[in-house]
Amino acid sequence: MDNQFLPMIEEQLLSFLPSEDCKEKKLIEAMKYSMEAGGKRVRPQLVLEFNNVCGGNPDAAMPFAAAVEMIHTYSLIHDDLPCMDNDDLRRGKPANHKVFGEDTALLAGDALLTLAFETLTCDRAVIFAGNTACRRAVNRLAKYAGANGMVGGQVIDLMSENTQVPLETIREMDYKKTACLIKAACELGCISASADKAQVLAAGRYGECLGIAFQIQDDILDCTSTDEELGKPVGSDEQNKKSTYVSLLGLEKAREMVTTLTDSAIASLSLFEGDTSALRSFAQSLANRSN
Amino acid sequence: MDNQFLPMIEEQLLSFLPSEDCKEKKLIEAMKYSMEAGGKRVRPQLVLEFNNVCGGNPDAAMPFAAAVEMIHTYSLIHDDLPCMDNDDLRRGKPANHKVFGEDTALLAGDALLTLAFETLTCDRAVIFAGNTACRRAVNRLAKYAGANGMVGGQVIDLMSENTQVPLETIREMDYKKTACLIKAACELGCISASADKAQVLAAGRYGECLGIAFQIQDDILDCTSTDEELGKPVGSDEQNKKSTYVSLLGLEKAREMVTTLTDSAIASLSLFEGDTSALRSFAQSLANRSN
Repeated sequence: MDNQFLPMIEEQLLSFLPSEDCKEKKLIEAMKYSMEAGGKRVRPQLVLEFNNVCGGNPDAAMPFAAAVEMIHTYSLIHDDLPCMDNDDLRRGKPANHKVFGEDTALLAGDALLTLAFETLTCDRAVIFAGNTACRRAVNRLAKYAGANGMVGGQVIDLMSENTQVPLETIREMDYKKTACLIKAACELGCISASADKAQVLAAGRYGECLGIAFQIQDDILDCTSTDEELGKPVGSDEQNKKSTYVSLLGLEKAREMVTTLTDSAIASLSLFEGDTSALRSFAQSLANRSN
Repeated sequence: MDNQFLPMIEEQLLSFLPSEDCKEKKLIEAMKYSMEAGGKRVRPQLVLEFNNVCGGNPDAAMPFAAAVEMIHTYSLIHDDLPCMDNDDLRRGKPANHKVFGEDTALLAGDALLTLAFETLTCDRAVIFAGNTACRRAVNRLAKYAGANGMVGGQVIDLMSENTQVPLETIREMDYKKTACLIKAACELGCISASADKAQVLAAGRYGECLGIAFQIQDDILDCTSTDEELGKPVGSDEQNKKSTYVSLLGLEKAREMVTTLTDSAIASLSLFEGDTSALRSFAQSLANRSN
């Protein structure tokens, strides 16, 4: 993406968090710590880009963008906990529970997940997007982030550890664990602009294709890249005997799938009259990325 | 309460959970396990009672009632985890993480919290309550369950362990940790009936008074009851040197507060034209309870 909305996101994102001036200060600090920890803000940018190509008002999209990033952030905090992946580091910084303790990290995740839905329905969202769009946004985001979405994908991942699984399971896991929240971001962008149902569907297709392509590209890089290029240890999938697109289909077929998915993502942009160049180049950059 | 809505709640509550016919079956089973584990269903009954006294349709209130019970259930699952209270038993049955493992229990809590908001905005809720009521319900419930509500109360509780705290802190902790979700239930009942703002406020006041009175009564019973009467070990507050209403104000003053709060709760019912006898007797039974 050309990052045209990144400054707005970085400027406003933290303003949706509660004030630290309260007895539960430590909780708010823990929430802020992980929201600040950065990342590329892919999901909030997708919300604002789709709002833009639907001719919407960024003021309507910004609460939705913040909500999606809150869901993404909570999932990382809970993922890093000792009872899950037990990761001490996240993006080069100590994981939330290493700084604030496991109990506060757990609650900070819960609070961010809850705050996402408060934010989707806040006064600003209602004024700029309307009650119906807010209600629809809550329903879509909850669906894609919940038991048959992102959380469901994490459970499938847990059950697939140290065991060979068929391609169908990998596809469903990648779709739910990674693609669902990206899909939600794209749909919420359209909903914030009161776009019609066909456009919401097309945006969802773009997000879904992109999310799965991203995951396959991850598998490809894990077996073709070097530690230096990727910025993290490669070869972990083979070492863990993890079933991936590459191990099941071979490198060439996996690369073909990334190309096909990228093409499908871009094709689904034809329904939008606004300038989709940023969304097109974003899809291409994901397919060509080397880290 | 006279439990007039209890059969409807028990009959319909689990229908809001996703089908177990999916790859993440274990997650759905874990969610169901704790939702079935019972309890008195106080919060969903309050939703339906307030819907009723506002002249509403129980079909509009039922998704809201289910959502509040999902939030209550998720909070118990996360509360019992080893990094929190580390309780092996809940209502006489093994805690969720003892049956399904810590990772799945954590995710089942996350999924129930997320499902609460999907349920508040589901087709049935929209058809019977309308977009505006759904949007308001999401915003109120998220606010009362989040960082400055229930989750905030848990953080204040964590910080108050093994230390003497002033009455003001106990009041805020009890309000946030216990009373907020009860308050949300009462307000959501009115919102599901599209009641006016004064009624929503009055219902919230009823719930708030009741929630705090309930907590003070807990402190009183902990130092006046016997293990047999209460069904759990008494004297734990004194043993843990926990500051309570009783330790700070004395038994007599604490009892006076319960009476005053119960009277205030009942007084706030005067704004409703429907039959409030169930809500009145419920407030009285809480104040007089001995277990």
